[in-house]
Amino acid sequence: MKPFVPGKDKEKITPLYIQLYRHIKNEILTGNLAVGEKLPSLRSLSSESGLSITTSTQAYNQLLTEGYILSRPQSGYYVAEIPTSSVIPEESSKGPGPEFRDYTFDSDGYLHDPESFDFQKWKKCSSRVFTEYEDLLLFESDVQGEAALRFEICKYLYSSRGVTASPGQVVIGAGTQQLTSHLARILTLMGIDLICTEDPGYTPIQNIFRDMGFGIAKIPVGERGIMIEKLPVNISTAVYVSPANQFPTGSVMPIGSRYNLLNWAKENGSIILEDDYDSELRYFGKPVPALQGLDENNSTVYLGSFSSTLFPAIKISYMILPPHMAEIFSSIKDDYTQTCSKAEQLTLALFMEDGYYYTNIRKLRSLYSQKLEATVQAFEKYGRDFVEATNTKSGINITLDVRTKKSENLLCQDGKDLGIHIKPTQMKVDKEKRSLSFYFNQIPLDRIDFLIKNLVEMWKK
Amino acid sequence: MKPFVPGKDKEKITPLYIQLYRHIKNEILTGNLAVGEKLPSLRSLSSESGLSITTSTQAYNQLLTEGYILSRPQSGYYVAEIPTSSVIPEESSKGPGPEFRDYTFDSDGYLHDPESFDFQKWKKCSSRVFTEYEDLLLFESDVQGEAALRFEICKYLYSSRGVTASPGQVVIGAGTQQLTSHLARILTLMGIDLICTEDPGYTPIQNIFRDMGFGIAKIPVGERGIMIEKLPVNISTAVYVSPANQFPTGSVMPIGSRYNLLNWAKENGSIILEDDYDSELRYFGKPVPALQGLDENNSTVYLGSFSSTLFPAIKISYMILPPHMAEIFSSIKDDYTQTCSKAEQLTLALFMEDGYYYTNIRKLRSLYSQKLEATVQAFEKYGRDFVEATNTKSGINITLDVRTKKSENLLCQDGKDLGIHIKPTQMKVDKEKRSLSFYFNQIPLDRIDFLIKNLVEMWKK
Repeated sequence: MKPFVPGKDKEKITPLYIQLYRHIKNEILTGNLAVGEKLPSLRSLSSESGLSITTSTQAYNQLLTEGYILSRPQSGYYVAEIPTSSVIPEESSKGPGPEFRDYTFDSDGYLHDPESFDFQKWKKCSSRVFTEYEDLLLFESDVQGEAALRFEICKYLYSSRGVTASPGQVVIGAGTQQLTSHLARILTLMGIDLICTEDPGYTPIQNIFRDMGFGIAKIPVGERGIMIEKLPVNISTAVYVSPANQFPTGSVMPIGSRYNLLNWAKENGSIILEDDYDSELRYFGKPVPALQGLDENNSTVYLGSFSSTLFPAIKISYMILPPHMAEIFSSIKDDYTQTCSKAEQLTLALFMEDGYYYTNIRKLRSLYSQKLEATVQAFEKYGRDFVEATNTKSGINITLDVRTKKSENLLCQDGKDLGIHIKPTQMKVDKEKRSLSFYFNQIPLDRIDFLIKNLVEMWKK
Repeated sequence: MKPFVPGKDKEKITPLYIQLYRHIKNEILTGNLAVGEKLPSLRSLSSESGLSITTSTQAYNQLLTEGYILSRPQSGYYVAEIPTSSVIPEESSKGPGPEFRDYTFDSDGYLHDPESFDFQKWKKCSSRVFTEYEDLLLFESDVQGEAALRFEICKYLYSSRGVTASPGQVVIGAGTQQLTSHLARILTLMGIDLICTEDPGYTPIQNIFRDMGFGIAKIPVGERGIMIEKLPVNISTAVYVSPANQFPTGSVMPIGSRYNLLNWAKENGSIILEDDYDSELRYFGKPVPALQGLDENNSTVYLGSFSSTLFPAIKISYMILPPHMAEIFSSIKDDYTQTCSKAEQLTLALFMEDGYYYTNIRKLRSLYSQKLEATVQAFEKYGRDFVEATNTKSGINITLDVRTKKSENLLCQDGKDLGIHIKPTQMKVDKEKRSLSFYFNQIPLDRIDFLIKNLVEMWKK
């Protein structure tokens, strides 16, 4: 293999790992690296080329993903067999400038599993929008979201989560951040300025409310979810809960507590913000019905999103407001614009109407439950007495307690070097342990065992 | 407890364990099983009901998860305590509810011209995204916007508007509102808290800055654009201008004034916010090059959008920051998420790369210049001595001075009744006149004459 020389790319447009990836790919395609030939180890490649191990790892991961090389456990990386027809002609004499392709070679450095979404079905619905519904694209989207999508969301949530609502109560937005700021404005107009949150809990939402001037009261979480007896009484507040799958503990709020929480809201004129994230991704038993459907007092706001059940690049979230809050939203909605793509909203409405969404959820449940099992087994096999997996029943991640003095950030960086998404949970465990969220959903099933083996080895160093 | 009888569910849609779970839940909720009462053991339940132990276990687990029953080690299962109000009503027999179609029959009440965009070309690019670039949809969009689109925007603006920038300076957002709030944050970090605006001018932008705590100084507009001699000196401010097509006067800033404005910015450490809206839609002569391209001092922020040149439902806007402001944005961008659809950004990048965007602009220029001419002629024909049209050289609207005592709102409502978009300009003309923006772009060419004839009749009543 010829030595790698980084390009004189003054504007640093092309990341180094892509330059390295292209160099090796070229060496393979031109035959300078033969099929079966062993590639330099990450360490020696890095020392020779002067690049960081991370950069080399990213380049190798890209080559692995595209199938140019293979990884053999405890041995190293080898050139894979590639049909000869794939030998690409010499690159045409490019001008000095960058090209379109240079900019589509984006990656966030993590693994992604193409098995997790059927883009062909989506494409079919998208095409229908531009043929059958193109007239609708000649004017702007409704600030509240497309009526057709709001209707499909109501239908779906009624049958899958027991949520009862009419399309007029649904507000669609491009992500949680946008909807939370609408919500903050509505709560302010209702005279509410204190948000109770789960501790430990999902911090981004807390931060949005804090930045918008709300007081935050952290309420501890027990096995039965948030401790209702510690919620403020005699004042009107809002409590943010995730009863179906508490983050990061995974606790599920039992039916008795649900009614107690609803009673608390009723008695104090308070509002429950029910974040039902990942609730469709339960792998054992039937999903627990939503609080919203049990609420007879119109005190629950239901929050959901499509990012985990469609594909990560889609940013469509929604909330279901009780009728009196929907009225407040109507009175202020002209102050906002809908930033969610109208074409994408209509595509999703057709995708749901045609039943593809339901089919996809079923497929994901089966695929992710296998990934979850493989993940838990691999940590048992390679990390016994070192890593303990908890919160292993649903969703797209599990919680790990790692017995180490390494910092959370270093542990996450080790994951990133392998292309695995890991985040600190911010949960306080004892001093000898670190608490992490491990995302298994985007790791291809057949690589879970191998990658976790490597991860545990890196962690133990 | 009543004995369990599996349903005559021929299609076997509902799994047996869920049927059993529902049966027991119902027995609890209706009081047939009392709080604290012991449930049959798994073994006896199975032998009584004829179901497998696995099925019974699954049903009990679901009831446990939802909190309807409790498990006492070495004793068995017991009915948990649940507030009595939780008795769920019989499932309603759903009537003939609304259908998907009922919700896609949306309209905003205005006319729309399908001639103004070729959705088939767009569909082609959109399909390519889901076939060739689907991998990119497996992770979230860059907060700054997709690199491929930022690159295409630079290429396009260089050739069409003389704007010089690298993709790292471009920030993409879902509409002006979002970008303006990024901009406000950047300016605040630079110590700028006063925005100078054109008077008369485009008010929504002013309002966003005002709502975010900026002071607003209104600077009069003359024939040569904003009056530079009236801008504040010796303090660092920002001025929001539209030199290519001032709203609503239509004045174009001549080259001499452009250099004067750039000098003012340089001397006072101030920033020019150049809104180049509709600049591509000029029908006479060559478009005036952008201020940004003349600026050698990095003091210009360039603002643009695709809503007028693609289709109204697309919400993709962009701004081009000078390098030092792009650095500030980089340091804060993790506080935001990209709300613009990633698939739509990639579609647009392909649409531009393939040259369709340029073709569409040419087509629009020809179509809209005909509409503009027809509009001006119709007002001359039917509204002489009553309506005067000004600002009739570019864009998607003209300015009308109507000699009437009817209020602006009534005049606009008359337009809406005919499906025509008309807005007050907020410009002060003499008491006997009303100043309106008349949008001709979405009226089909062959209906312009007829509709304006009717409109003038309604206005004269």
